[in-house]
Order: sequence, then C-alpha cells, then structure tokens
Amino acid sequence: MRTGIRNDLDLLAMYGHEEIPVFAGIDHPSDAKSFEVPESSGIFHGRNGTGNVRIPATSTSVQRDMSAVDFIIDAARTYGKDELVYVPTGSSTNIDAAFAKAPDIVEGITIVMMGGSLTQPGNCSSSTEANMSMDPQASNRLFSSRADITMIGLDVTMQALMTKKDTRTLRATGTAIGAFLADMTDYYIDISEKEDPAFQGGCNLHDPLAAAVALDPTLVTTFPIDLMVETEGPDRGRTVGDPTRLLSRPKHTRVALEVDVERFTRRFMHRLLSLASPTK
Amino acid sequence: MRTGIRNDLDLLAMYGHEEIPVFAGIDHPSDAKSFEVPESSGIFHGRNGTGNVRIPATSTSVQRDMSAVDFIIDAARTYGKDELVYVPTGSSTNIDAAFAKAPDIVEGITIVMMGGSLTQPGNCSSSTEANMSMDPQASNRLFSSRADITMIGLDVTMQALMTKKDTRTLRATGTAIGAFLADMTDYYIDISEKEDPAFQGGCNLHDPLAAAVALDPTLVTTFPIDLMVETEGPDRGRTVGDPTRLLSRPKHTRVALEVDVERFTRRFMHRLLSLASPTK
Repeated sequence: MRTGIRNDLDLLAMYGHEEIPVFAGIDHPSDAKSFEVPESSGIFHGRNGTGNVRIPATSTSVQRDMSAVDFIIDAARTYGKDELVYVPTGSSTNIDAAFAKAPDIVEGITIVMMGGSLTQPGNCSSSTEANMSMDPQASNRLFSSRADITMIGLDVTMQALMTKKDTRTLRATGTAIGAFLADMTDYYIDISEKEDPAFQGGCNLHDPLAAAVALDPTLVTTFPIDLMVETEGPDRGRTVGDPTRLLSRPKHTRVALEVDVERFTRRFMHRLLSLASPTK
Repeated sequence: MRTGIRNDLDLLAMYGHEEIPVFAGIDHPSDAKSFEVPESSGIFHGRNGTGNVRIPATSTSVQRDMSAVDFIIDAARTYGKDELVYVPTGSSTNIDAAFAKAPDIVEGITIVMMGGSLTQPGNCSSSTEANMSMDPQASNRLFSSRADITMIGLDVTMQALMTKKDTRTLRATGTAIGAFLADMTDYYIDISEKEDPAFQGGCNLHDPLAAAVALDPTLVTTFPIDLMVETEGPDRGRTVGDPTRLLSRPKHTRVALEVDVERFTRRFMHRLLSLASPTK
C-alpha cells in the first residue's frame, strides 16, 4: 500500500498534476487484519508496481487531514449521484467502509468499478478475478446494497488491448513521459505474453477502460443483473448472478458485456499522447 | 434411459400423437461406458421420471430401424439449417456423435439447446448445470464446432415459472390429461420449494422454454459469445466464455440472457390447455 501511494504521488508530479490530492485508503481487507500483496501482482505489475520502470522520486505527500473513506463520504454528500462517479480499480474495501459509516450516501453515488468476471474465466483462478478476490465480503455487501453500479469486468477489459505498435508510438514522442509509458507498458505486454494463456497480442487495459466508461458510458453495452460474490469455498471471490433476486426489479447493477474497442483505444491513445507530447 | 423412452412413448399415446416417432439415443456419455442416473434426477423428477404420477402403459415401440444419431444426420441432410431446429434437452452426446460421424451436417443444422448457465450459479454444483455436467467433453466439442447454437440456460429458464395457480387451471379442465399435467407439475413445484434454495414461487420451465424459443426466437434476448465447457477439476461441466476466442468474429453461439416471461408462459399455458381440453 505504501508503494501504491508513493507511485500515485510521484506519477502525478511527473505528469505535472500535483494539484490532484491522494488519500490513503484502508490497508487491509474488511475480514482480515493485514494484507499480503499476492505473488501474481508482483509478476504482472513488477516489484515496484510500475513494471520495474523507475519514476522520478518527489517529496509530495498524501493528504493527512482526511482518510479515503471520509473523502468518499464527503464527496458523495457534496456532489451527489449525477455529478460524481467513483471508479474503484482495486478491492471494494473503502467504498464498503464508507457505506457502513454513512448509509445515506448509498443512493447518492454512481460507481463504475473495474473488477469481476461474469461470462469469462477469472485471472486469479478459473472463476475469480483479482480485485474481487481481495475482499469478497466487502464486494458482496456492495452488490447487495442499492448503489448504482456498472461493473467493468474481464468480460470487456480482456477485449481492450495495448500493443507494441502503441508503445512505439508513445516512445516516438521523444519525451521522458512517452518513454516511461512505453517502457512500463512493454513490461506488461511481455509478461502477459509469457504468463497469460489467453494472450491476444497485447496487454489488457483493465483500469483505463473503467475510467473511460465513467466519462462515456456509451463505450459499452451493459446487461442488468443483481450480482453476488462468493465468500466461501474454492470459488471465493467469484462474481455471479444472485438467483434469489433473479426476478426482482429494478436492477441496480449493470455488467458490461460488449465494448467498442476501436473507439476506446483511439481515445485512450489520444489521451496518452497528449500527456506525453513535447509541447506539454 | 429405458424409462425415458417408455415415458416418451406412453405420453405420446396419452396425448393422441402416436404418429411422432421416438428414436433411441446413445445410453452413456462419450467418455464413459455407462451412465448412472444422478440421485438429484430421481429427487426432482420422481423415481419414474414424471413426478411419480403414473402414465397409462401402451405397447407402442421405439423405431428399430434407425438410431437417434442416424436420424439427426438424415434430418439435417434432408431439411438443412433453415428448415430444421434441433432442441437437445439433455446431454450433448447424440449431436456430438452425429457431428463426428457426419461432419458435413455441422453447418446444416440450427440448435436451440437447454443447458448450461453463464451468469447464474448452476443447479448441479455452484457453477455447473445438470445437462452440461452429463457429458462435458461432448458439450465442449459442440461449442467449439461452427454449429449455429442458441443456449437456453439457467440464466433464462430460472425466470420462467409454473405455479400452483397454473396447475389449478389445468386440473379445472376435468380431463385425465389435465389432471396428469397438474399432478406431475405439483410434484415438481413441491420438490422445488423443498430442495431449491433459490425457489421463486414455482417450478422452472427449463425444457419448455427451449422448445418455445425454437418456435419463436424473439422470446429471448441473446448475447453472442464463444463458449467452452470445463472438462476437468471441480468445475467440470461449467459453461463459460472461451477467452482464446474472445476477439474472434463471427460468433456462432448466442446465450439467452433475457426472456419475455409473460408472453412465454401465456403461450405455454395455452398449449397445455388445448392439449388437456375436453373437446380434444
């Protein structure tokens, strides 16, 4: 967790956006006292979390006056469902804690989450996706709340790829940011080719797709379904329909099943290139 | 299997349709020498396969000059994809054997199958559906063929219910057929209430929905996806997307995810009532 916060701060500085605040979240799952980074995370993301590519160190620091949980609560109360989209790209621990502390915000926040897998195998086990496996209890509570959730899972993120052709384009900007993004992504592409039996020619853009859908929901086609997360047994962490709510209406959760890959990757590369362009 | 054939013949006679031929299929899964009826089948369908309600015995017999596999091959070659819909409501053993014996028919047959579960838990285990569990190897080969398949799985069949109100309507016809259908279904409703943790007030119309979709595909909304069936391990029999074919086009398989329950059950009851009506 310290590595993640430090990376966030240093990356924001590198991109010239130190004005964006970083809040520290809860550092362990809701049903455990501590958290060990899974071995697979070290493999896929590199030991330092950014494909073993160094980020220039800075001395900026995390917000000390407010926790991530209180920031979520405060933001939901300040902006409300129509103005605020929360995009979790890890476990559901923080949003679950926020809902427990301030139940009034449940219906006052729009959530577009990266996590889960409904129609494809998992990336943690044959049925479980990594983010949902980290805190299945919290994710299951989240899905049984009445919160407005769009799940951006492996169903669509495994279709959204970044290739060596893309990283060559980034490197061709000739900037430090372009080189950093290219090197970091090349690591991720190479390790995916080596470790992922379903490798399709590039690395999966899991989190960027969730962020893109938060900005433009028309990028995906969704299926309304009430979900649960298995909290016990060999499939602990699996996202699946809740059969006891199969007939209930309205549905609060939608799962993205189809994605306009061409439109998404074009826009995403446009963003990365404007971040990396020399005039920046 | 003998019970199933005898039931089919006796039911057809009871309904006055002895002209419909019954062919004997293969009596064991493709990767085993024999088949034991699972205990759960005896529970859900009754010891005799029709909710322990007796069907008047007849002396009609199965077609002896042709196997089910050869009948499938012959029908596909005679009618072709636009005229013929094959509706398997059990394992994929026969259609798989037909494809192996006559590969030319693979693209000459339309299949609407009852089986599998993509977005909901299974009814055999938390991830496996009964029909797909009987011969996972055959089902996996079927899904990797280029056959045109619409999967009618638990995703939609668990939404299609028959209730005690419906069986009262059938019994009110005052006919033997009406009483038989009502008694048989009451057994199924009662056992579902007792054994199914996701009981929603009625029994699931698994096979009738597949037959109805074969007649009118607009009853369901489908999602195009290349599927595989897990053939090993604890999830043996699970239907799930094949990640190695996630980006391939066109898709040959579609999975029904939404169903017009009201329109389906109205039509289904209309059919049953005309079968059971005194003027019949």
